[in-house]
Amino acid sequence: MSEVTLGRYLFERLHQLEVNTIFGLPGDFNLSLLDKIYEVENMKWAGNANELNAAYAADGYSRIKRLACLVTTFGVGELSALNGVGGAYAEHVGLLHVVGVPSIASQAKQLLLHHTLGNGDFTVFHRMSNNISQTTAFISDIHSAPSEIDRCIRDAYVYQRPVYVGLPANLVDLKVPASLLDTPIDLTLKPNDPEAQDEVIETVKQLISQAANPIILVDACASRHDCKLEVEQLVDATQFPVFTTPMGKSGVNEAHPRFGGVYVGTLSHPEVKAAVESADLVLSVGALLSDFNTGSFSYSYKTKNIVEFHSDYTKIRQATFPGVQMKEALQSLLKTVKQAVNPSYVALPVPSVKLIASPAPPATPLTQEYLWTKVSSWFRDGDIIVTETGTSAFGIVQSRFPSNTVGISQVLWGSIGFTVGACVGAAMAAQELDPNRRVILFVGDGSLQLTVQEISTLCKWECNNTYLFVLNNDGYTIERLIHGETASYNDIQPWNNLQLLPLFNAKEYETLRISTVGELNKLFNDKAFATPDKLRMVEVMLPRMDAPANLVAQAKISEATNAAQD
Amino acid sequence: MSEVTLGRYLFERLHQLEVNTIFGLPGDFNLSLLDKIYEVENMKWAGNANELNAAYAADGYSRIKRLACLVTTFGVGELSALNGVGGAYAEHVGLLHVVGVPSIASQAKQLLLHHTLGNGDFTVFHRMSNNISQTTAFISDIHSAPSEIDRCIRDAYVYQRPVYVGLPANLVDLKVPASLLDTPIDLTLKPNDPEAQDEVIETVKQLISQAANPIILVDACASRHDCKLEVEQLVDATQFPVFTTPMGKSGVNEAHPRFGGVYVGTLSHPEVKAAVESADLVLSVGALLSDFNTGSFSYSYKTKNIVEFHSDYTKIRQATFPGVQMKEALQSLLKTVKQAVNPSYVALPVPSVKLIASPAPPATPLTQEYLWTKVSSWFRDGDIIVTETGTSAFGIVQSRFPSNTVGISQVLWGSIGFTVGACVGAAMAAQELDPNRRVILFVGDGSLQLTVQEISTLCKWECNNTYLFVLNNDGYTIERLIHGETASYNDIQPWNNLQLLPLFNAKEYETLRISTVGELNKLFNDKAFATPDKLRMVEVMLPRMDAPANLVAQAKISEATNAAQD
Repeated sequence: MSEVTLGRYLFERLHQLEVNTIFGLPGDFNLSLLDKIYEVENMKWAGNANELNAAYAADGYSRIKRLACLVTTFGVGELSALNGVGGAYAEHVGLLHVVGVPSIASQAKQLLLHHTLGNGDFTVFHRMSNNISQTTAFISDIHSAPSEIDRCIRDAYVYQRPVYVGLPANLVDLKVPASLLDTPIDLTLKPNDPEAQDEVIETVKQLISQAANPIILVDACASRHDCKLEVEQLVDATQFPVFTTPMGKSGVNEAHPRFGGVYVGTLSHPEVKAAVESADLVLSVGALLSDFNTGSFSYSYKTKNIVEFHSDYTKIRQATFPGVQMKEALQSLLKTVKQAVNPSYVALPVPSVKLIASPAPPATPLTQEYLWTKVSSWFRDGDIIVTETGTSAFGIVQSRFPSNTVGISQVLWGSIGFTVGACVGAAMAAQELDPNRRVILFVGDGSLQLTVQEISTLCKWECNNTYLFVLNNDGYTIERLIHGETASYNDIQPWNNLQLLPLFNAKEYETLRISTVGELNKLFNDKAFATPDKLRMVEVMLPRMDAPANLVAQAKISEATNAAQD
Repeated sequence: MSEVTLGRYLFERLHQLEVNTIFGLPGDFNLSLLDKIYEVENMKWAGNANELNAAYAADGYSRIKRLACLVTTFGVGELSALNGVGGAYAEHVGLLHVVGVPSIASQAKQLLLHHTLGNGDFTVFHRMSNNISQTTAFISDIHSAPSEIDRCIRDAYVYQRPVYVGLPANLVDLKVPASLLDTPIDLTLKPNDPEAQDEVIETVKQLISQAANPIILVDACASRHDCKLEVEQLVDATQFPVFTTPMGKSGVNEAHPRFGGVYVGTLSHPEVKAAVESADLVLSVGALLSDFNTGSFSYSYKTKNIVEFHSDYTKIRQATFPGVQMKEALQSLLKTVKQAVNPSYVALPVPSVKLIASPAPPATPLTQEYLWTKVSSWFRDGDIIVTETGTSAFGIVQSRFPSNTVGISQVLWGSIGFTVGACVGAAMAAQELDPNRRVILFVGDGSLQLTVQEISTLCKWECNNTYLFVLNNDGYTIERLIHGETASYNDIQPWNNLQLLPLFNAKEYETLRISTVGELNKLFNDKAFATPDKLRMVEVMLPRMDAPANLVAQAKISEATNAAQD
């Protein structure tokens, strides 16, 4: 095979990076492209229920496999996906968004095609996506097309951001040299400037050597930019206590003896707050200090000795070192950090998180407090735990994850409905890696309504490794806490959620409704239930205004911020 | 009441224009704004299932009431709506998109808030929407806010396009003078330049006086820009035959004796094609000549005597008259047009459309051909008929509408799933105008899946005037016709669609499945069924590759266009 079509070239490149499921919907301008998916070994077209859901699914897949591909059609399809793409941008998720666009000839003639604005402008959607993309390409020349595709895949992977590729319908069938596929795409990071990096390492080691009470704080970008291993090695070498933020949760092994809990400023557990804020050195890795990630910017360190490792720079106290990327910097630091630790440093015990729910009679109505305390005991090694913006994303903060779990949430972007799609992508990624790996979704009854049809995709692919916990508190509880407790705009039409799986023609499935402490305990003690051998939905009935304590506190601050006068 | 809040001001202004239902979803940055809806008499918050659906619903509402308002929240909410807003732009639909944005203080401090990209850029989403808006406002000053809101409402109404308004959360509670509401928003069009208009009228009359065989061709913008009355008066005065395009369907009274059918270039009924193309003068009103509206640009007039009346210019043969708007030009023409008609003009009979389905035994499996021929007899005066892109939008072309019907379809933008949302908006508008007015949706099983949850909104508001015909042909038949007949990407997960209404807790409802000619005939003869007193879903089982003949022909051309080499 000396030549391949450009369409196939694209998918072969993705296959080389273990992207084996493609998300999206068919549309007139991408049909020929989709044909090529079936030519690549083991490659699968997910066929999502709509484009926003497909973008969410691609996001979820990428959080497991570091890259995902979303295919939409010109105008209508691509615009539907933008909120999902925006989320991938905000949250640092590698996503290649390939849009099937009209043929070059149609563009040149400015034909008044369907799926256009009717004004002959074929670049308008590309311009819109440009605002939420790391880079873009609007392919128009077959000769440069392979290198443009390579560049786009590389940037999506390396920078962990969305990248937009417009691919005209007539180009996907044209041929390019197959030999181009023999050279893998170069995914290495540009090396740090040695002088700048040396200065960083020396300064950090000096700070470490003087610190009596240092801590490590792990945030979202640590896992997004592939530094989980380096972080764990840093903890091992130094024995410093390690904490995460809500968005960084699962970025460090929570079963590690030096793991101290989740830091969220004033919303933290008091012991965690005291431990973090009394530190005399903070080594921060991959920080993304958004409102919901910091208890509304309520960080209050005692020390000015803060080192921030980022994917594209390092900051030490007030000095910024542009271009000193954290992965290489941490690897370099690891070589000698052990020796730099102050000999008098004593690794005091870290805060311990209470994981035992207060005993309650079995008939006691279930509360968020009970659920989020109890759930840790049910999680197991390797689980992928997906929590929706709302009570779930706040509640999960008080759980503890076993080793090798992945937490998926959208703490910064916070688009409700995200997790239903993300769960599909994560479930398909898990199926590729290990069919016994469980994917566990916690979604509110309100959020579920936005993206419910994506459950149909779980049914289609028989993702029997998936647990769907629908937290039914009769509407938008998070919004009721922020503003409008009794306002009807926070009400939703009640659904018979347990009818969803049969509606979507699920094959092997189980549905349950629980509302008491006893029912939850029974479920979490049931070995058969813990085995991922069918698609399950559990509707968890919860009081209308019940919420995790950290959400109640956050909501009060949020309303004040929104209403702030300038 | 000498002062009102800015939020209330907005909704009072909309109320003055009979916009009494507001579409959208709550979000932290719009909650205080939503409070104000309940302060305005008879105003209703629809509370849609997601933002894309809400945008579609607003579009449907506006097509009945000439203006609609959509409220979303910053970032996540507004981006989800963009495909719907883009559709309103392409198809000329008046839509005010109000986005609740963070407070001015938060913007000034560039806080890393949730729902942002995390880069302190608070204008990025406004910039994105600017590409698909007639005009925009990002309100920052309470003093100019009322006039900015007035300007935006005016432009949305007058130009029949989407307009974007960013409204900071802290401003909606500030007060503005109530007396501003006493002066209605000026919605009059700028008068045409008298000299240019006179020249247009004289030239058109001259062409009319010389024409032996003139026709009138009505397209989408005739109804969008409120010229239905002028068109009907023109037909009455001249007795010229009148035709519509697919997108213009319902822009002229099809029960009028001079109505000749739907012209779609080569895809037209032969008699219609002959009648239109042999004309020696074409008076075209509100043309929007997109591919699916013209049989892929296959217009073939014999004459060069073409007059195009548009909302913002007039064109006579090759001469353009910028700024000569059609409504005033037509009104002016109407004063003397009757006298201009050639005395020897003979009003020959117009083509007659066959409306009787070929007789078939009751057990005959139903086909698209039979359905779309038979359905005309079931339509009645005042119906709102919503047809989805796919077999429905093509099939409806061969039906005939009674008087005072409104057809809703998205022939140019063609976003699948649009009609489920649009049907909700149309149903709520119809409820406001006349609860006995029927809203009839034809949607394919594939398109339905994209936006299915919006049916829940019909259940919530008990829109018992609504008929949902789900055309089940087991997947994306339109795409199969264009490309990939056997490709699995055109398959969908089969659903038990008749379980949807009980799932969504519909109150008064009826569900039916039909698959034969006999069952369809029985249904259309059933008086009880014809009475809009409950929410109804009819699943119509159709063969997988069966399609209206015009779609089969269009699909062949489409594939060729897509694959065209440059």
